[in-house]
Amino acid sequence: MRYVMLPTVWEESVCDLQAAGHERVDDLHDADFLLYTGYWDEFPELPPNIKFVQTAFAGLDALVAGGQLDPSVRWANAAGWYADSVAESTLALLLAVYHGHKYAGQQASFSAAEKLQDATRFLFHDKTVVILGAGGIGERLIEMLAPFNARVIAVNHSGRPVAGAADTVALGGDAGELRTRVWAQADVLVNLLPLTDATRGIVGAELLAQLKGGCVVVNTGRGGTIDTDALVDALESGHLGGAGLDVTDPEPLPDGHRLWELPNVVVTPHTANTVPNMKRVTGKFTAENARLFAEGKKMATEVDVAAQY
Amino acid sequence: MRYVMLPTVWEESVCDLQAAGHERVDDLHDADFLLYTGYWDEFPELPPNIKFVQTAFAGLDALVAGGQLDPSVRWANAAGWYADSVAESTLALLLAVYHGHKYAGQQASFSAAEKLQDATRFLFHDKTVVILGAGGIGERLIEMLAPFNARVIAVNHSGRPVAGAADTVALGGDAGELRTRVWAQADVLVNLLPLTDATRGIVGAELLAQLKGGCVVVNTGRGGTIDTDALVDALESGHLGGAGLDVTDPEPLPDGHRLWELPNVVVTPHTANTVPNMKRVTGKFTAENARLFAEGKKMATEVDVAAQY
Repeated sequence: MRYVMLPTVWEESVCDLQAAGHERVDDLHDADFLLYTGYWDEFPELPPNIKFVQTAFAGLDALVAGGQLDPSVRWANAAGWYADSVAESTLALLLAVYHGHKYAGQQASFSAAEKLQDATRFLFHDKTVVILGAGGIGERLIEMLAPFNARVIAVNHSGRPVAGAADTVALGGDAGELRTRVWAQADVLVNLLPLTDATRGIVGAELLAQLKGGCVVVNTGRGGTIDTDALVDALESGHLGGAGLDVTDPEPLPDGHRLWELPNVVVTPHTANTVPNMKRVTGKFTAENARLFAEGKKMATEVDVAAQY
Repeated sequence: MRYVMLPTVWEESVCDLQAAGHERVDDLHDADFLLYTGYWDEFPELPPNIKFVQTAFAGLDALVAGGQLDPSVRWANAAGWYADSVAESTLALLLAVYHGHKYAGQQASFSAAEKLQDATRFLFHDKTVVILGAGGIGERLIEMLAPFNARVIAVNHSGRPVAGAADTVALGGDAGELRTRVWAQADVLVNLLPLTDATRGIVGAELLAQLKGGCVVVNTGRGGTIDTDALVDALESGHLGGAGLDVTDPEPLPDGHRLWELPNVVVTPHTANTVPNMKRVTGKFTAENARLFAEGKKMATEVDVAAQY
């Protein structure tokens, strides 16, 4: 098939698509599909010859907000493509918080040992990890948690059991059941939810208060799914044991924000997945979707436009 | 058996030993063995009724330096008891360096993304991890590296194959072979060596120069096995990609030391294993050694006094 790659051409992905028999063209009017590698402010008008749009990003929230999720075209996103990178980054943030890295760096002194001898936590010490929004990334994370013998409770929309999880609970289920079976069990809460109308601010003061004391929150989903003020309150009161945040609300997180300073909060600037990693896999996965499209099938990461993900 | 626990009594360990039928006494002259929980400056004179000494630490370097490793008594150390904690801490340091946590924290600004989009490395990207001093901790680390599909090259004294390693090489082997089969392959060098006369300063300028460019060094063994000045030089020249250090030489690392400041060096204050974790397992493992001793067998962690470990 013929495709346009906009707004940035990733040579590594062009080569992978060429190896699969796809030709890159410059004019959107000559193309069968659009591979979109940018942010949404640069999204083009789609001519009628474009049969589907493939985005190199998993989150479509900005596209929805911009009214660009045209239902007359088929869409595929990058859901699951970055499971490896985001799962690895999630574990990295979790371990950094557990092991007091930021506190040690801020003290810049061996005297940090006085606190860290007692404050260091170990993931292998019979911990329960709740994964909120457990899909492809969550499954990859479960594999990475396995050597630590962590007990995983998965929470997803359907309640359909997630491989490797000790328990799976539906997000929309009974509040009392969620409280006892999920939130009160959490030594760690990993949030991987996409940002939709249904998930905005879902981790707010009420949910945070139900988490086990000392719980560590890791957010590698979308910043807007957590109420930042409520999170800061729960950290400063000592109810939470720490946080690892790759995404925040607002984002970019302003200089001088409390989250940059707190010794038990590790922040990365939305680099749980990176552009070099996207270039590494986008061509391969796009070729797979193009093949399915050409065969008249549903694409592997085809978007449910109504559900926004 | 009857034992004395010195200099600090760990109630959690007393309970575990009591459950195994061992009685704690106060006077060293009434005891069959000594369970030693402290640093070496408080080590007591041993009366002849003491049949063996169990240390709660793995490294015996300070004991050797103090001339206290009395060869007329049998000794057991804590080798392997802290495999879980040290392996977890090793992975935590490695991932923190790979993911640029310290740089992000120092910048305390979303603008850190400009650098970290490119500088973030991923362990799952076909990395080779060299484990120097691969014993019990190394084997546990190999399990934790497995979900990342990292290729592991083990280096130990015997060259005896380590489970899960793609290759095992003897530390005392041919220098040219070590250069090509080991050092030049290393995306990550994990040092787990104990400090002995044979290992002091073994990771010096010569070895560091042979490491693959961009290699990340993680030290959770003993500080004195790495030449600190050579390490700082290799970091500042850009030859190394970063370091994660739980142990240093000197230790404590002085305030204001360059290693505290470098943005790609994560330092923890010798907390890869912690006293609470030692309390958690010492009673159980000591009881196992006492059982073996009573049966006239070699203890599970019996020390080879001549080899110093």
